[in-house]
Amino acid sequence: MRFFSDNAAPVCPQVMQAMAGVNQIDTAYDGDRWSKSLDARFSELFECPVRALWVPSGTAANALALAALCPPHGGVVCHRDAHIQNDECGAPEFYTHGAKLMIAEGNGAKLTPDGITDVIDAIANDVHRIQPHAISITNATEYGLVYAPDEVAAIGALARARGLGLHMDGARFANAVAHLDCHPADVTWRAGVDVLSFGFVKNGAMSAEALIFFDTALADLTLYRRKRAGLLLSKGRYLAAQLLAMLEGGLWLANARAANAGAALIARAAGARLVHPVQANEIFLRATPEEAALLRARGFDFYDWAPGEIRLVTSWDQSAEAIRPLADAVAAL
Amino acid sequence: MRFFSDNAAPVCPQVMQAMAGVNQIDTAYDGDRWSKSLDARFSELFECPVRALWVPSGTAANALALAALCPPHGGVVCHRDAHIQNDECGAPEFYTHGAKLMIAEGNGAKLTPDGITDVIDAIANDVHRIQPHAISITNATEYGLVYAPDEVAAIGALARARGLGLHMDGARFANAVAHLDCHPADVTWRAGVDVLSFGFVKNGAMSAEALIFFDTALADLTLYRRKRAGLLLSKGRYLAAQLLAMLEGGLWLANARAANAGAALIARAAGARLVHPVQANEIFLRATPEEAALLRARGFDFYDWAPGEIRLVTSWDQSAEAIRPLADAVAAL
Amino acid sequence: MRFFSDNAAPVCPQVMQAMAGVNQIDTAYDGDRWSKSLDARFSELFECPVRALWVPSGTAANALALAALCPPHGGVVCHRDAHIQNDECGAPEFYTHGAKLMIAEGNGAKLTPDGITDVIDAIANDVHRIQPHAISITNATEYGLVYAPDEVAAIGALARARGLGLHMDGARFANAVAHLDCHPADVTWRAGVDVLSFGFVKNGAMSAEALIFFDTALADLTLYRRKRAGLLLSKGRYLAAQLLAMLEGGLWLANARAANAGAALIARAAGARLVHPVQANEIFLRATPEEAALLRARGFDFYDWAPGEIRLVTSWDQSAEAIRPLADAVAAL
Amino acid sequence: MRFFSDNAAPVCPQVMQAMAGVNQIDTAYDGDRWSKSLDARFSELFECPVRALWVPSGTAANALALAALCPPHGGVVCHRDAHIQNDECGAPEFYTHGAKLMIAEGNGAKLTPDGITDVIDAIANDVHRIQPHAISITNATEYGLVYAPDEVAAIGALARARGLGLHMDGARFANAVAHLDCHPADVTWRAGVDVLSFGFVKNGAMSAEALIFFDTALADLTLYRRKRAGLLLSKGRYLAAQLLAMLEGGLWLANARAANAGAALIARAAGARLVHPVQANEIFLRATPEEAALLRARGFDFYDWAPGEIRLVTSWDQSAEAIRPLADAVAAL
Repeated sequence: MRFFSDNAAPVCPQVMQAMAGVNQIDTAYDGDRWSKSLDARFSELFECPVRALWVPSGTAANALALAALCPPHGGVVCHRDAHIQNDECGAPEFYTHGAKLMIAEGNGAKLTPDGITDVIDAIANDVHRIQPHAISITNATEYGLVYAPDEVAAIGALARARGLGLHMDGARFANAVAHLDCHPADVTWRAGVDVLSFGFVKNGAMSAEALIFFDTALADLTLYRRKRAGLLLSKGRYLAAQLLAMLEGGLWLANARAANAGAALIARAAGARLVHPVQANEIFLRATPEEAALLRARGFDFYDWAPGEIRLVTSWDQSAEAIRPLADAVAAL
Repeated sequence: MRFFSDNAAPVCPQVMQAMAGVNQIDTAYDGDRWSKSLDARFSELFECPVRALWVPSGTAANALALAALCPPHGGVVCHRDAHIQNDECGAPEFYTHGAKLMIAEGNGAKLTPDGITDVIDAIANDVHRIQPHAISITNATEYGLVYAPDEVAAIGALARARGLGLHMDGARFANAVAHLDCHPADVTWRAGVDVLSFGFVKNGAMSAEALIFFDTALADLTLYRRKRAGLLLSKGRYLAAQLLAMLEGGLWLANARAANAGAALIARAAGARLVHPVQANEIFLRATPEEAALLRARGFDFYDWAPGEIRLVTSWDQSAEAIRPLADAVAAL
Repeated sequence: MRFFSDNAAPVCPQVMQAMAGVNQIDTAYDGDRWSKSLDARFSELFECPVRALWVPSGTAANALALAALCPPHGGVVCHRDAHIQNDECGAPEFYTHGAKLMIAEGNGAKLTPDGITDVIDAIANDVHRIQPHAISITNATEYGLVYAPDEVAAIGALARARGLGLHMDGARFANAVAHLDCHPADVTWRAGVDVLSFGFVKNGAMSAEALIFFDTALADLTLYRRKRAGLLLSKGRYLAAQLLAMLEGGLWLANARAANAGAALIARAAGARLVHPVQANEIFLRATPEEAALLRARGFDFYDWAPGEIRLVTSWDQSAEAIRPLADAVAAL
Repeated sequence: MRFFSDNAAPVCPQVMQAMAGVNQIDTAYDGDRWSKSLDARFSELFECPVRALWVPSGTAANALALAALCPPHGGVVCHRDAHIQNDECGAPEFYTHGAKLMIAEGNGAKLTPDGITDVIDAIANDVHRIQPHAISITNATEYGLVYAPDEVAAIGALARARGLGLHMDGARFANAVAHLDCHPADVTWRAGVDVLSFGFVKNGAMSAEALIFFDTALADLTLYRRKRAGLLLSKGRYLAAQLLAMLEGGLWLANARAANAGAALIARAAGARLVHPVQANEIFLRATPEEAALLRARGFDFYDWAPGEIRLVTSWDQSAEAIRPLADAVAAL
């Protein structure tokens, strides 16, 4: 059974159905009625006027967001273990035309105001040094930890004080909100986030993420950058439809809750083996190679994260019943 | 009725079905069995070993192709009316890191060896001038003309003689092959084409184009560029499935033939109004504003191409019966 | 005798002396007293507050100027024969990260409002097309013609009306001002120019051009771009000294007048052979290959510009006496 | 007295004289006889065929070198304290079009094979990770330490084994060779270095560094990149003349020996205060703010490097007599 990555999960039936529902003649690119409705629908969700653009991947969303916040000669503070630093083959550098990621430290891939100031206060304010222009945080983090609204707000306040933009990589934003049980606004614009990569693909969509601009002035130029990057798909209505289906009836939140619940089940079974608290849908636990082999022999598929450490990721489609065997197997180790 | 663009057509049922057919758990990115089969399937189609990468848009395919053929300090010869020059918001410049498109002339957006040498022979061979590194042609062209194998071969021979790469923008490659009734190899690698953007989205697919490397050595670096551009979708199997469905039973060719047939019907009706011979699925015809208004009043939707000139595009899903009313209306003008 | 290019002329004695005069210990980069005085000295010259940066080449000045005026996804309107289009190996594309030069036409490499609107009015205002962000004109032009203040002002008014920045490539700005006998402000900021590449190297300096920002807000970011491009030389005082020496006592204008006077002498001798009116220090004249060979046989060095056309360039160091033999030889053809 | 930076030193009389010696009419750019002689002169110096290009700054030399060794989607391993990482405002990222600097550790800003493999072995070989393409080391390092031939050779062997290019930032290469008392070939190409930024500006030149390609195949493309960056100065003969003057009679080595000797004098006085062994012309020593103030009060100018640590740099023009007072003052602290 797959616990390798939520990327590998199937697409949610409601999303498949919504795509079939727009399989008709309509205007190309983002001129169709569904694409045009995204601003309104996401503004409603976030209770403030936003600009919402579909993009076909989370890497594209992140890179476009950073390009909107940071000039080529600037820097973006992020965590050493951030996806933008390690897993996007330099997409931020490509889209920003060479901006530099400035590495900060923090437990569980979480940044703190102190960790950020450690980095930026060490940068002399002269033209020889790349100057910071933005901060990027991931919620939930790469280790499945969740920033609470006040934690984001503290970083948001620092960003404003220093004149930096704030981006949130929300590849698992839904899982974070599900864990926090807060309004999505509380952990984004109300806490100072300027741009959000709102992930849907890991959570039931097929090929559509939402790039949300709370600083709406940044959206217009991004339309050009999206086109220029080959990301403005001509049949954009199929992407819009995915997002609308995920918003409909709170599907995005329900799916995330399901994935989180599965992770919680495993976490309880893992107990002291846990490397990080489990707050979203990722579980990092200590396991010897022998133990890992044992789990694999029982049909569970997952990632060897580090020596003596494995990563399990649950998905929207895995019920408690489906997960129980893994939980039991982990408990029995 | 829509004659605005083949981009606006619906997705072909076989493609929708194929996507549903891969809606299961599988490896992410391009590690799934369908993505992995593309090299073999396209090699079979082209009767030579090729590397075939899915990409979500034609603009992305073109830009990645040019980046593989031309360094940042180089130039790409293309027609003044080429899509890469006019309709991609600078994607070639973005992906190549600033290479220059070198504008050549030719009737019906078609390049000729003479038109190309006019451009490149005027470039002094010194470091002050950007040097040409590649040629890009579009088949069928932006005006619906089709390069025959010997026309491509003449350009291919020139390219080889001058040490230039040859890219074919095949957004409507299927329509070209349908018109030529030749083997797809005849008008590509056998004629000297190094890289082909093989379009499927205008022809019945949803969000997958194929980037075909006949010069297979260029493919490996492109894998990095594709990822770095945010184009390596995590659920790549849904893109692979689209391409496989389009290849299955020659659907790509059948669809293109249908679209071409519709265009031929209108072309016959248009007679002397035609601005260009109709070879693929685009019809450019002379029409006064009043005539255009008349057609629109009868429910036909299309593009005003230039003063006194309109563009009609037929699609895979339009039967002869569906098109007859437009043909009649055009004849009656 | 050299009439090949003013680039090949020696450095003016006053400039050599000024460089010797700063050959002492001082702060590095642009922190020295001479570099720091540039803003004030050029503000005085232009009778308005400007920011003035030394850069080591005209290509660098132009490219930095365009990068300040145009985003990566934008376009710059320039003449088909502009230096930035033909002779800088893509420096504008490199510094702007891929902006596009949009080619306009005009006699003698001179743009007009009509020639510019022909280009920009043809660009649909959508994300598929690169949008114009700036205009670049060269004064004196690549063919030695000079824009008068009202000609620049007409373009400046157009630029403002369309929200475009206006750059002047002034590689031979001094020659233009000498010809116009106007205040340098009249043909720059008073006529709507935002950024000027003020050339000194062709006019007696060694390795220092001035990049003048009339729109001073653009200067700060350019400081970072200059450093990032490796153009912030550590011993910058030797560049500042060159510029200060050229300003001292109006040397820049005196040198340009000398060069222009030489050109006028040849122009009078050339009479009906002239391809363009001679207004600055370049002479383009019709000459058969035999005539060209004859001139060369008499020791005159110059450039074959086009079939049946040669280019002669006079320099600051060539006195009327030195030039007379060439004038006589031309007259005798 | 200045111990702030060798950048602030005057230009060597022989260099000034050489520049005056080429103040005559000659071909522009790098077509003059002096520029053309550089390949031969540096090939002689290094006892192997090299390509030698003048560039006006060390930052430009480094960035061009890295662009020759690393594609936009690649990475360059360098030390956390490398000049390319901290002091060039992102020039490597600009010239490489967004390659990533991969930070390695090592005492005194010195890399070791182990420090490098720690970095590159942690990078999974897939398209999600930026892959290393080059290593860049600085000799003498940013802390004044010198890599001996065998130390470079160990890194060179690693580079070859892993298919990586090897760049040496030799801003103070002369000081390194002076310390090692070895042949310049021993610590460069014989040890596996592909490209060397050979610094002259800190050592008596004005505005010319040499970019040396031991892998001569890389030089041709760099000619285009140099032009494209605005670095191909039109009066290039004044740069060539500087380099030739520095080579003449081993001036480069004599100057470096003088600077090193001064540093050694201070090092002996500093004794246990030294933070790093003094091998070239930089001295890092522990000093309280009061002690630093005391030195400054006596007229010595220098850089506060870190809390409780100051940096003193000696230059080619400072004789033992000139330095003695500082040495005495340090000893008396």
